[in-house]
Amino acid sequence: MTLRSEIDEQPAVLTRLLTGTSSGVAAAARLLGSADVRHVVIAARGTSDNAARYAKYVWGTRNQLPVTLAAPSVYGAYASPPSLGAAAVVGISQSGQSPDIRSVVAEGKRQGRPTIAITNDVDSPLAELADAVVPMHAGPELSVAATKTYTATLLNIALISTALEGADHSQILGAVPEAAAGVLDETPGIVDAAGAFGATRDCVVLGRGYNYSTAFEWALKLQEMAYVLAHPFSVADFAHGPFALLEPEFPVLAVVADGPLLDSTLAMLDRVRAERDVNLLSITNDRRTPGPTVMVPRVDEWLSPIPAIVAGQIFAMTLAGARGIDPEQPRGLTKVTRTT
Amino acid sequence: MTLRSEIDEQPAVLTRLLTGTSSGVAAAARLLGSADVRHVVIAARGTSDNAARYAKYVWGTRNQLPVTLAAPSVYGAYASPPSLGAAAVVGISQSGQSPDIRSVVAEGKRQGRPTIAITNDVDSPLAELADAVVPMHAGPELSVAATKTYTATLLNIALISTALEGADHSQILGAVPEAAAGVLDETPGIVDAAGAFGATRDCVVLGRGYNYSTAFEWALKLQEMAYVLAHPFSVADFAHGPFALLEPEFPVLAVVADGPLLDSTLAMLDRVRAERDVNLLSITNDRRTPGPTVMVPRVDEWLSPIPAIVAGQIFAMTLAGARGIDPEQPRGLTKVTRTT
Repeated sequence: MTLRSEIDEQPAVLTRLLTGTSSGVAAAARLLGSADVRHVVIAARGTSDNAARYAKYVWGTRNQLPVTLAAPSVYGAYASPPSLGAAAVVGISQSGQSPDIRSVVAEGKRQGRPTIAITNDVDSPLAELADAVVPMHAGPELSVAATKTYTATLLNIALISTALEGADHSQILGAVPEAAAGVLDETPGIVDAAGAFGATRDCVVLGRGYNYSTAFEWALKLQEMAYVLAHPFSVADFAHGPFALLEPEFPVLAVVADGPLLDSTLAMLDRVRAERDVNLLSITNDRRTPGPTVMVPRVDEWLSPIPAIVAGQIFAMTLAGARGIDPEQPRGLTKVTRTT
Repeated sequence: MTLRSEIDEQPAVLTRLLTGTSSGVAAAARLLGSADVRHVVIAARGTSDNAARYAKYVWGTRNQLPVTLAAPSVYGAYASPPSLGAAAVVGISQSGQSPDIRSVVAEGKRQGRPTIAITNDVDSPLAELADAVVPMHAGPELSVAATKTYTATLLNIALISTALEGADHSQILGAVPEAAAGVLDETPGIVDAAGAFGATRDCVVLGRGYNYSTAFEWALKLQEMAYVLAHPFSVADFAHGPFALLEPEFPVLAVVADGPLLDSTLAMLDRVRAERDVNLLSITNDRRTPGPTVMVPRVDEWLSPIPAIVAGQIFAMTLAGARGIDPEQPRGLTKVTRTT
């Protein structure tokens, strides 16, 4: 299976990024560190947009850079796009083909701003446009559902953060490929856990902080691989309305990691269990997590989205199989999406 | 019913905002127009976050201001919040009570940046904190589900845009309360349309451009009033994965408005009908929209989210009633949400 082998390649891809020459990362960090760059605008769609959510937290909290997820149609569809005079513009796209992502980066260039492409195809139109190109180095990704390009993008974002900080986090970063491999070794446990969700047609996926991105990406994998209407929420937003829709046995998936938001996340999980008796499952690196869990190896919180989503990918693939769906070929989707 | 009467008050609230003294709007526009403000960070949750989505498009395309929706935990939970040196900070909160929204505005203040509060309580802690206070003037809102404070916030955002532009759009704006009243008159047609969705447990809600916000807010009303797991998507993102989960008869709601994104939106609606035979309903101001529709009065595209969401509110309230739910008192929710 192509999808499973692409999931399995992730430790090798991550190792390659950590040990390879990183001229793209250094160039990107130089641009983001320019004195006149006061904020960052990222254009991305689908899986890449979830990577952008991760960048919003990592660059925001570790590098003090305010990050905006561009709404591409704000740039492409209307007469006068925003003024980017204080921004750097980043486009994230596996294929580097999507016209609307390119149009945001092109607008940055037109306004004389620094531009960065994070892409798996360094010869793509997006790469040609950008001042700095950060390769995903993931090798060909043939499955429609992106897996290894997502984790490669997260690690690139972390590496850019580290370069910008000028600090040596090589030991902390070095633990990431091994943690991803540790999740792959946990496959039987993940398959078991997914068994309780075989009849799931809809669910919510909760996450917060760095793992807000993981909630979105896990939900997207469930949507495109297993046709589950998975709805991601921040734990905080969930209290503003969506909590009302929980009924007993309703499937609630959660991503939990040790860090400053752990207590509020655990409090919400306790609440959905006590008040609603939901069918809960958490991907977590903390043993205090209530209810059934998939335990993943612990890495620093800011890097925890990488092992966490590997577990989410295996979970979604398993659920697809249990529902008789071929996750290699989601109906109605194509690998390269040319939205305008 | 309190909820229905709050929905019905909307034309009067909108008229009040258009005819009242708008010193708050003028002050907010002055701050956003400062030479050193290069981008805007908005902190909001729930319904107010959907209003922030509207501001992202309106201020972005009409005033060339890049707008970021702050992830409050980026500011509150981690050690070093982003540097806001080129930003203005806006907090949107009906009650003005939520600690995490206040903490983002407080951080802006701490960094010496201009701050704006859009709130229904001008004596709230959020209002006390901000340099400029823009009142929603909506009167007491007692239902847990926000309705009139949402449309009041949208109109405030439009008024700030107009003040910033220095243009006179009073004729265009003046049509908005009447359009909202026209939607109220359409209640029987909306109730009929909702009848086909009585068994709906989950659905997707599509929107794009200015009405991306409407898709989110309609989905939130369906979640909190009718316990429907409604999932909002941009029409463009929908092609990146979620399209796969459509099955025949699956409920698809759409918000459609005449404008530069109309053609791509109509193309997606044609596609979901032709390829998936879904149960489609659109709130639209354009007669070319395929399938069953709720027609709402036409106003300029940038203002179309106001009449559109009034139809969405009535639809959600009707669905709640059809499902035997009291939409006044959603289970597990409180009017003031004190997330931290």
